[in-house]
Amino acid sequence: MTAPHDFSIRCVGTGSYAPETVLTNQDIEQRMDTNDAWIQKTYGIRERRVASPTQQVSDLSCEAAKRALDAAMLGPEQIDLIIHASINNDVRVPATACIVQGRLGCDEAVAFDINLGGCPNTAFALTTAIKYLDGVRFKRALVICTEIYSKFINWSYRSSACFLGDGSGAVVLETGPGGGPLACDLHTAGSQYAEVVWAGGGTRQVDPEEQTPIINGRVVWDFGHRVVPEVIRTVIASAGFEVDDVDFFIFHQANINMIRNNMAALGVPPERTHMNNDRFGNTGGASSLIALDEAVRLGKIPPKSRVVLCSYGAGLAWGAVLFEYRGR
Amino acid sequence: MTAPHDFSIRCVGTGSYAPETVLTNQDIEQRMDTNDAWIQKTYGIRERRVASPTQQVSDLSCEAAKRALDAAMLGPEQIDLIIHASINNDVRVPATACIVQGRLGCDEAVAFDINLGGCPNTAFALTTAIKYLDGVRFKRALVICTEIYSKFINWSYRSSACFLGDGSGAVVLETGPGGGPLACDLHTAGSQYAEVVWAGGGTRQVDPEEQTPIINGRVVWDFGHRVVPEVIRTVIASAGFEVDDVDFFIFHQANINMIRNNMAALGVPPERTHMNNDRFGNTGGASSLIALDEAVRLGKIPPKSRVVLCSYGAGLAWGAVLFEYRGR
Repeated sequence: MTAPHDFSIRCVGTGSYAPETVLTNQDIEQRMDTNDAWIQKTYGIRERRVASPTQQVSDLSCEAAKRALDAAMLGPEQIDLIIHASINNDVRVPATACIVQGRLGCDEAVAFDINLGGCPNTAFALTTAIKYLDGVRFKRALVICTEIYSKFINWSYRSSACFLGDGSGAVVLETGPGGGPLACDLHTAGSQYAEVVWAGGGTRQVDPEEQTPIINGRVVWDFGHRVVPEVIRTVIASAGFEVDDVDFFIFHQANINMIRNNMAALGVPPERTHMNNDRFGNTGGASSLIALDEAVRLGKIPPKSRVVLCSYGAGLAWGAVLFEYRGR
Repeated sequence: MTAPHDFSIRCVGTGSYAPETVLTNQDIEQRMDTNDAWIQKTYGIRERRVASPTQQVSDLSCEAAKRALDAAMLGPEQIDLIIHASINNDVRVPATACIVQGRLGCDEAVAFDINLGGCPNTAFALTTAIKYLDGVRFKRALVICTEIYSKFINWSYRSSACFLGDGSGAVVLETGPGGGPLACDLHTAGSQYAEVVWAGGGTRQVDPEEQTPIINGRVVWDFGHRVVPEVIRTVIASAGFEVDDVDFFIFHQANINMIRNNMAALGVPPERTHMNNDRFGNTGGASSLIALDEAVRLGKIPPKSRVVLCSYGAGLAWGAVLFEYRGR
């Protein structure tokens, strides 16, 4: 649905951060029964980043957030809302959003965590920020999606360990006078919750060796090819546009083959998207925000671009947001 | 702020569930160095419920949700939005909201998790639902707050283990034509995130023995006495009412002494609130929804009552929501 506002909400800054430590496919070959050629062919991944033993979720988040605030030319006290999305947190209590709020000095903000099981987080976090942004109490939102998967991966289980990576992405959304392109569409199909499960960390006790993502690959492959073009077409239509009116498309960076197929289905040429999962792997909800930030910094997304971002995965859950990258 | 809608949002059903197993103060005395008299004097707690080894967060949530749907006389397919709030989940992936969606058969809903570190969850979950409810795509929301603390407690650490309990509360919010009382106010002070910390379960590695809530009691005591009357007065004023215009007050059930002091500060007589932490302890975000459900079922909150609910705790975070309990 289009936002029922007489003001616009636009993205005025992006930031991202990935840990310095690079884990290549060759490194992965040492740890489990797999090989570089298979990983590249299957996922398009050459390497990924992994957090150091002392790096926590909030460390990555603060770094990405600072870069987004710098890009937006805003001080921390100008942020009214912080939404943090991650399947993992530093600790059980408090919310990571509050830790980030405190560390950044966003003293005027309301901060909370949301979660959709990782990969789908981005569209849900952005949409929730859009729902709160009213131009009165909430004028500017900092949305951060972060994952540290490496600390919870069973490195002997080849089909999941090799495609995940650690990282964080952040955006600043700002309200302003006048209209502007904005649309969101979210979906969850909890009837299929068992198709992507990462046991552990919760009340369901499982053997440590089983604490690794178990993904029904066939179902997720079909799901991704079905819902991504569908939800992207829905947000574009609900904003009154055609696919050709959208300047740039940001896809969840799970699998390069799926992204290419979905671009073909939508008729999106290569110059209107940005892919980086060869260097980062699948960083969950962070992936599309890292791709967005890179594309902005590379000049691929100039100010006043219409952008569609789509995220999807466990839940099953999927969503897309159409917004203006306004920049500064 | 008051909702900028030309329709109202009201509570049409409540439900709650607590595990059958009762753990009395006498049972606690066997596990650690404490005693019944001290627990009763300090917190007002006589007993609490604890989940069985096979009960997961989603089990409690589904039970509370079913009771709320029954009270609202709605089928699962009539729910458009599920917001689930808990510091713990069944598993890392998927979101508990999606598991609950799937198990209840709420096939038309969008479902996601939010978290504010436990106790404050209620006001944040309700407010987030209110932000989404637009009367178009989102007409009815199921909001569920659940905690299973018992599986993560260090039972030898007296000052936290004795005041927590497991449980779940749920409400159905519904949009309808015409105006109605509605106001929300949320706050977080992340600069004080270190005042309530429960390490463990996340990326920050800690010794299993340290995985227990560490609370700066003095700070939280002062905080609770300061922010609760303040935020309650704010929501009442922003809806255009006085304290005497509110029919019923629901407080987070952390500490009976703090509730009594805050009632005195606000001038709320005993017949306009309901306390049950003597039987359930502090069930985090679930506590005020369990109290709400009990008060409704006891006839203390008749249909068309104006209710204020306040939750607060780790973050530090606090919030209040003023709404109409419409019933059926």
